[in-house]
Amino acid sequence: MRVLGVDPGTLRLGFGVVDAEGASVVYVSSGTVKCSDKLPVPERLKLLYAELEKVIRLHKPDCAAVESPFFSVNARSALAIGKAQTVAILAAVNAGLEVFEYPPALIKSHIAGFGASTKDQVTSMVMLQLRLTEPLSSPDAADALACALCHIQEARRTAVIRASQA
Amino acid sequence: MRVLGVDPGTLRLGFGVVDAEGASVVYVSSGTVKCSDKLPVPERLKLLYAELEKVIRLHKPDCAAVESPFFSVNARSALAIGKAQTVAILAAVNAGLEVFEYPPALIKSHIAGFGASTKDQVTSMVMLQLRLTEPLSSPDAADALACALCHIQEARRTAVIRASQA
Repeated sequence: MRVLGVDPGTLRLGFGVVDAEGASVVYVSSGTVKCSDKLPVPERLKLLYAELEKVIRLHKPDCAAVESPFFSVNARSALAIGKAQTVAILAAVNAGLEVFEYPPALIKSHIAGFGASTKDQVTSMVMLQLRLTEPLSSPDAADALACALCHIQEARRTAVIRASQA
Repeated sequence: MRVLGVDPGTLRLGFGVVDAEGASVVYVSSGTVKCSDKLPVPERLKLLYAELEKVIRLHKPDCAAVESPFFSVNARSALAIGKAQTVAILAAVNAGLEVFEYPPALIKSHIAGFGASTKDQVTSMVMLQLRLTEPLSSPDAADALACALCHIQEARRTAVIRASQA
């Protein structure tokens, strides 16, 4: 299973592609799409959509895992992140991928053991789990990879529960 | 100028197309896209995007006016409406249209004279302004037409201000 993880934002959107092979995980690619804040929002969303389409065409993931906005930030910020999140969902679903959404606390909890871990802790754990020696391009790319890893762990968890109920 | 107005929602999305011809406005089309609440959200967004693409291909509007979510509702509701709004923005911008966003209070104020008017008042005023004798398919379609009319009034206002400053 190849998973595209997305950490959405209208100024910086992180993406990361991870393969789940048996019990292990393999790094495929990651990066950040940057938008100028001088660009009107609709143009930014168009750019994010087009860049995600390219990533999907290039890496052909089986599904997408998208981080959902954090509700304790104010409604206006949640809405801006929500726009980028919707672009990610739409780019994935329009390419025929199944889409999963994960809240930040669950992603952090899976990757670093607790929901309130820092960005540095998330980056370190992502690099450790994927056995990366080169630093990642941005914290957004690390968050996107963390989201992909979260989906892989959730999928394994579901499989274990199903097997134990069979 | 032909304007596509959109009243976004993930269960019911209203759309309306209006022509501005000199000082008058002419009704072109309107309707509602309905999504089953049994459909997962990504599939709903895919359906809304595809239906808006069809409307744009059929009626070839020059620009799109999209109602923005109302902030006094809770963050979760604003986010759901925000998803549908983003789909509308993306469908329009990906088709090469310029996109404008208007808050509900401004739309209501333009159409019915004050920001807190009821759905029935909006529907009546939309029908009056567009000289419609047949009832509209839904309040969502009326809201979408109101959003298109709001854009036409805003565009005229801008033109008047520019002319007076020239």
